Amino acid sequence: MSFRTIEWRGDKVVMIDQTKLPTEEVYNEYSDFQGVAEAIRGMIIRGAPAIGVAAAMGVALGARDIIADTHESFFRQLSNVCDVLARTRPTAVNLFWAIERMKRVAEANRDKDINSIRAILKAEAIAVEAEDLQICKAIGANGAALIKDGATVLTHCNAGGLATAGYGTALGVIRAAHESGKKIKVIADETRPWLQGARLTAWELMKDNIPVTLISDNMAGWLMQNGEIDCCVVGADRIAANGDTANKIGTYSVAVLAKEHRIPFYVAAPISTLDLSLDSGAKIPIEERTITEVTQIKGIQIAPEGVKVRNPAFDVTPARYVTAIITEKGVAHGDYLESLSALAKG
Amino acid sequence: MSFRTIEWRGDKVVMIDQTKLPTEEVYNEYSDFQGVAEAIRGMIIRGAPAIGVAAAMGVALGARDIIADTHESFFRQLSNVCDVLARTRPTAVNLFWAIERMKRVAEANRDKDINSIRAILKAEAIAVEAEDLQICKAIGANGAALIKDGATVLTHCNAGGLATAGYGTALGVIRAAHESGKKIKVIADETRPWLQGARLTAWELMKDNIPVTLISDNMAGWLMQNGEIDCCVVGADRIAANGDTANKIGTYSVAVLAKEHRIPFYVAAPISTLDLSLDSGAKIPIEERTITEVTQIKGIQIAPEGVKVRNPAFDVTPARYVTAIITEKGVAHGDYLESLSALAKG
Repeated sequence: MSFRTIEWRGDKVVMIDQTKLPTEEVYNEYSDFQGVAEAIRGMIIRGAPAIGVAAAMGVALGARDIIADTHESFFRQLSNVCDVLARTRPTAVNLFWAIERMKRVAEANRDKDINSIRAILKAEAIAVEAEDLQICKAIGANGAALIKDGATVLTHCNAGGLATAGYGTALGVIRAAHESGKKIKVIADETRPWLQGARLTAWELMKDNIPVTLISDNMAGWLMQNGEIDCCVVGADRIAANGDTANKIGTYSVAVLAKEHRIPFYVAAPISTLDLSLDSGAKIPIEERTITEVTQIKGIQIAPEGVKVRNPAFDVTPARYVTAIITEKGVAHGDYLESLSALAKG
Repeated sequence: MSFRTIEWRGDKVVMIDQTKLPTEEVYNEYSDFQGVAEAIRGMIIRGAPAIGVAAAMGVALGARDIIADTHESFFRQLSNVCDVLARTRPTAVNLFWAIERMKRVAEANRDKDINSIRAILKAEAIAVEAEDLQICKAIGANGAALIKDGATVLTHCNAGGLATAGYGTALGVIRAAHESGKKIKVIADETRPWLQGARLTAWELMKDNIPVTLISDNMAGWLMQNGEIDCCVVGADRIAANGDTANKIGTYSVAVLAKEHRIPFYVAAPISTLDLSLDSGAKIPIEERTITEVTQIKGIQIAPEGVKVRNPAFDVTPARYVTAIITEKGVAHGDYLESLSALAKG
């Protein structure tokens, strides 16, 4: 891949600014956890696994900057850092997973001196990033077998290198199939309102010379009716124990259309996206974002002033629409309550 | 209604410029048929019935300006005027219907002098407009009974006053239900890529104080899953003899989602939208428009330069997804081959 989504460089966290793509390739530097929290909230960085990496790095930055004489003071302030990061976005569980992981590591090293704990947290955040890249490659390897040579694959939103530490989940499956020599074509839903498909998926696939065609979200059904789509692969922001999958708004519509046309619908996500504490998707909190995402594009008004708007950022696809869930530990099918928990334990 | 979509004023045809709404309410004047043809092609005016009215007025303008000494020359040039207008857009059958109607009227008056024929064509074009308004009101009256008090109605694209001589087809049904005292709420799909829902439907419903909420196209499925939509009403650009309905891209996806959630899906259109010469929707030509409609919004680039794009402007919803077709002559159900031809003859 010819870009880095997020990395720890020197004493800063560097992220590609995903609000400026594809017209500008700008890298922002963050030197404190507040900046990282704002970057997550403002979608400078987005995509569930990438948000997890950013949160881990945010915790490490926060830990580094805490002024504390005692362990008690340090841990109290660290808890505050974690709370600020946890309040940035509600739906992607990887955010909470990464913060919990960082907290656990800090607790496990409570007997060490504060500077050692800071160093351990920094190393852990960098490890989260490195692991995420490896996990995506494993997801790709596990999923590639499901993609037939010559297939046209629809994807929604961006579950690519930009949504992860690199390589991607849904796009990881597509990259792995492509790298194995299969002639894959991708149809990218533009993914309103934030246009992750138009701005990010099209950009990163073009960078990697993987054939991609951009469509408006509402064209997918017509292409399916015409037999122009062979399968769908999407990412996930949170997967309940029964396989119900929260992902970018519009994913559910794609899944219904896929079922109607008997097209396989795959979800690709790391095990960290599983939330086994939720028995179904009904309990996944769905973020509603600002109405200007719908009424304006790059500051240009495209709807009447004062119009009422709904802007749920995610939806939940019931497990019965999901043909398989592709993780780094294997592919879950059928009874997800059983197959997912087996993978999680495995 | 507080605006006029199209009217013959003095020696010109005046249209509200639908490319500039909702931020600017501008009225363009056209003094020749070439200008009207360009306005149709450039979607200054759009919507199947409105395109029919514009074409009729274009024929009348063309007839007025023909320089001819003989009937033969006049009719040859009139045929050319009709051909230019017919080549503007391929899908909406009302365009061809209106042009054929104007040709028939000219032929039927061939024995009159040329200036009389010009006057008859102008009167006919104005009659097409006046009739369209009456037809929309009849569609509204026939369809309103299908909308329950308190219903939330999803509509796609703009099949409103702006798509017709006034009042609208799908929005005519909504207006009639609202005027009858039913508490109706409308959910308007923004309708990418051209944003007819965001720009036009939201605008005209707000003007009439009918409650409207704007969503991205890909949110409809999620709202249906949550029980927030009671029925769908859309317009049509061409309806085949068997009820297969061509309408704005994304209509088919709405229909599939409606079926999945057991929500009634209604098509509202004048009899002039029927194309009984086509036995199914497979033969309806689907216009592909320029890729910049997808890659740019108001001139702002939202996708990578050079990306491959599909931009079908319409799709075909098979009749089996359509709960009923609402026309000015009544409501067709069930076996459309029978019920539609009965209405057309009636």
